[in-house]
Amino acid sequence: MWRATVITLYPELFPGPLAASVVGRGVGEGLWSLDSVNIRDFSNNPYGSVDDTPAGGGSGLVMRADILAAALDSVPQEGRPRLCLTPRGAPFTQAHARHLSRGPGLIALCGRFEGIDERIFAARDVEEVSIGDFVMAGGEIAAMALIEACVRLIPGVLGSASSTEEESFEGGLLEYPQYTRPRDFEGRVIPDVLLSGDHQKIAEWRLKKRQEITRARRPDLWKRFLADGPIRPTGQETRSTGKNNKEPKR
Amino acid sequence: MWRATVITLYPELFPGPLAASVVGRGVGEGLWSLDSVNIRDFSNNPYGSVDDTPAGGGSGLVMRADILAAALDSVPQEGRPRLCLTPRGAPFTQAHARHLSRGPGLIALCGRFEGIDERIFAARDVEEVSIGDFVMAGGEIAAMALIEACVRLIPGVLGSASSTEEESFEGGLLEYPQYTRPRDFEGRVIPDVLLSGDHQKIAEWRLKKRQEITRARRPDLWKRFLADGPIRPTGQETRSTGKNNKEPKR
Repeated sequence: MWRATVITLYPELFPGPLAASVVGRGVGEGLWSLDSVNIRDFSNNPYGSVDDTPAGGGSGLVMRADILAAALDSVPQEGRPRLCLTPRGAPFTQAHARHLSRGPGLIALCGRFEGIDERIFAARDVEEVSIGDFVMAGGEIAAMALIEACVRLIPGVLGSASSTEEESFEGGLLEYPQYTRPRDFEGRVIPDVLLSGDHQKIAEWRLKKRQEITRARRPDLWKRFLADGPIRPTGQETRSTGKNNKEPKR
Repeated sequence: MWRATVITLYPELFPGPLAASVVGRGVGEGLWSLDSVNIRDFSNNPYGSVDDTPAGGGSGLVMRADILAAALDSVPQEGRPRLCLTPRGAPFTQAHARHLSRGPGLIALCGRFEGIDERIFAARDVEEVSIGDFVMAGGEIAAMALIEACVRLIPGVLGSASSTEEESFEGGLLEYPQYTRPRDFEGRVIPDVLLSGDHQKIAEWRLKKRQEITRARRPDLWKRFLADGPIRPTGQETRSTGKNNKEPKR
């Protein structure tokens, strides 16, 4: 079973939103589990503090390496990578989510205050990862985002009703636009091709839209897509095999 | 007062983690507020459904534009931008967070299922934004991340103990490494310069580290930093003015 352990000053926030919807149901189905460790339990002083003033001066407080090390050491690693959520980290991507979802799980260290003592990263082989180019009040919500992205890729979690094969970032492109009833919404109608029943044409239209949208919105992804070569269009026929809940073969 | 309204199928998840720490305390202090709207309340059928099969085929379900429009129309906009959390959106950055934190707030639309009907974006002037290049089970945790990033920048939320002037992305660079007691952690010692008391040298060391880390970890940010020109080092002296809780002048 895939296991997430969150090391945090706010264990009461977990599972929180991770208990909702198909992701939360996956816990009851034994597909994954979540536990948390309270950093404050590893304070080594009578005040229960876990932080101290930054060496060299500056505002705020820095979480102590020795206390974080004790918290990390209390969690059996069992082959799981240790990740620290921080805007200084490597950008977390769908490829990382896929990779992590195929492993035994992860251990997520959530910082608070001004930051955490740099020495913990090398001393405990903690990888710094960032969910995006913005700063948060702590790593907790970022850890939830990362865990949700991984868990939905665990086989069985989304079930056969949903597919992850044609969504954004698969094949290096953003997703095509979706439409549903009503056909006419305030004078805006569903593109004719989608109502044509011509699966080949629909697949071509969707691939063209994926390319247009990626080129327009994400020149960075588009450049990488062009460098890596085009993908083959995958249409309705490949999605009606009853294997939508399986991981795509790579 | 800064106001966030979240439009979601899971209103019970809010405020959730946004009620914690200084961000949550900001609500009690009247600095910001959060409310949520349940999309299901705007279902126009006896089953309470809000979605339908994708036009053109494919797996999963698509959220209906007419129902989302009714949910959006129920929320007084009051000058607030409407954002939809989706991996197809424009990457959300610290610059967006600063911009949003200075406005009246935001309205966040959270998708679920396979996606939402494309027509809602133009019909209701909804901006698609992405917190990162990965796919989640829904927009709820992404909305929490975005809201937390904005709220912590509202003057007064972090208080005078913390500063946002030298953190990651300010001046186009990642943050410098932080250290605190003990001086010797498992044989790893705090760099001498940080214990020297020489504020000028410390400021120079920190700027050099910011540049090194940004160059090594984020060639994309580094390239932009070089194109935009270097920033002046800001040292301890600029951080002890008692204005650490103010927004930096731009």
